[in-house]
Amino acid sequence: MINVPRLTLDDARQIIAACKVKAKEIEVDMDIAITDDSGNLIAFQRMDNARITSIQISMDKAWTAAAARKSTRDYWNASQPGQPTYGINASNNGRFSTVPGGIPVFVNSQIVGGVGCSSGTPDQDELVAQAGVAAFLDTLN
Amino acid sequence: MINVPRLTLDDARQIIAACKVKAKEIEVDMDIAITDDSGNLIAFQRMDNARITSIQISMDKAWTAAAARKSTRDYWNASQPGQPTYGINASNNGRFSTVPGGIPVFVNSQIVGGVGCSSGTPDQDELVAQAGVAAFLDTLN
Amino acid sequence: MINVPRLTLDDARQIIAACKVKAKEIEVDMDIAITDDSGNLIAFQRMDNARITSIQISMDKAWTAAAARKSTRDYWNASQPGQPTYGINASNNGRFSTVPGGIPVFVNSQIVGGVGCSSGTPDQDELVAQAGVAAFLDTLN
Amino acid sequence: MINVPRLTLDDARQIIAACKVKAKEIEVDMDIAITDDSGNLIAFQRMDNARITSIQISMDKAWTAAAARKSTRDYWNASQPGQPTYGINASNNGRFSTVPGGIPVFVNSQIVGGVGCSSGTPDQDELVAQAGVAAFLDTLN
Repeated sequence: MINVPRLTLDDARQIIAACKVKAKEIEVDMDIAITDDSGNLIAFQRMDNARITSIQISMDKAWTAAAARKSTRDYWNASQPGQPTYGINASNNGRFSTVPGGIPVFVNSQIVGGVGCSSGTPDQDELVAQAGVAAFLDTLN
Repeated sequence: MINVPRLTLDDARQIIAACKVKAKEIEVDMDIAITDDSGNLIAFQRMDNARITSIQISMDKAWTAAAARKSTRDYWNASQPGQPTYGINASNNGRFSTVPGGIPVFVNSQIVGGVGCSSGTPDQDELVAQAGVAAFLDTLN
Repeated sequence: MINVPRLTLDDARQIIAACKVKAKEIEVDMDIAITDDSGNLIAFQRMDNARITSIQISMDKAWTAAAARKSTRDYWNASQPGQPTYGINASNNGRFSTVPGGIPVFVNSQIVGGVGCSSGTPDQDELVAQAGVAAFLDTLN
Repeated sequence: MINVPRLTLDDARQIIAACKVKAKEIEVDMDIAITDDSGNLIAFQRMDNARITSIQISMDKAWTAAAARKSTRDYWNASQPGQPTYGINASNNGRFSTVPGGIPVFVNSQIVGGVGCSSGTPDQDELVAQAGVAAFLDTLN
């Protein structure tokens, strides 16, 4: 047997709080989802003007990032026409997100969770997700 | 709590009526779907020669337009290979439509519903959806 | 080859209108769905206070009634524990409705469509669906 | 058009906080989901020992309660064998929850959202959901 590190609910809430600070700074309400190392949802918040379509997309980004241990931007690149994972976005009942904004969370090189943001441009989504991860990692030092 | 505006059934029926006038004018029978601000269906009509495949597509276009507060044409553009939201069409169980013909309905800059048309070319679909929205907005003046 | 009779959109609209008269009479806003002989949706209306859960349920009732050529009440009876079709409600991805309120429409003993109502008690739903079918059949005489 | 009231994210967070107080009191970690009046998710938290199966179940309970404007316990009763809505739990792709623990939130007789809890016994789930709703309604006085 092995022991695996994993985000707690309090960790997830802290990440969401940091995401929201960044979302307010750039003035884009976001859907924000946090999963554990296995891709299972820990926490979610939809800011009041965030998109309804992005509820699922933010969860899918967080799931993809944690469960594949890669950012969804990496898959955006890798799934373009002619690229190695072309078509992968339809897998897992369409839950495999290839839209930037999903970030895996690693601690000591081990996956502990995933963060997914959606409602802005994918660049904005990723910026907000990264802000949440960065703030969390800062607390570990 | 907040208060949000929303189309009524009578509003939706009026939009469908105007869509049908345009559909007859261009001689293309259409599937026409109207959702509320949250993406939930209010009304649907399939003209006698409209496509069966377009039943779901028209509903998906209306849902996407209302729930993302953007036209599906915007997503057609933004989800081309190499574009920011490439791959997004597989999300939400494939319900996220990136085919033109879905139009959000805004009143005083607030989302109140969505209109989705399908059965013609996407350009025709969009023309018919726009005619429905324009006729509705005219009645508010 | 064969020729099959089928409801038109105008037929479907007429049925919905009659359903709404009955729904208003009993003071229960309804979701009302009409399918053709093949179970494909022709028209749908959600009265302003009808349930959101019943959007899909009304469509499922209409689909079941037309596609199985039986009322959903017949299946409610036949799918009780120990009865012949027990468990059938999970079939077709859960689209097979066993809740009363779905009525097949027959003309000269041939299936031409289905009517599904939902939002009240199943007895109320069925009453409203029946009113729609009866009014339509009256117009054929 | 009509105007409808709706929970905000801050309302939803307050409800979750109150649910967690009750969950800790009875010593059962819970999955807690809050939707708006239309059934769209606003916020979700999984307490550290809450069940993974209950992530979806809590969301389904909240969706059912808001979108049907009834507690899921009412449907537990009404969907027993021989009862009026027997079989309804398979509808909406199985999203229609008939397990107690989903509570609609009404303000001035208008639906504004739904709360769904899962991980304990259904009675415990309902107790925790009710505590969240009660605490929220208290703040309105």
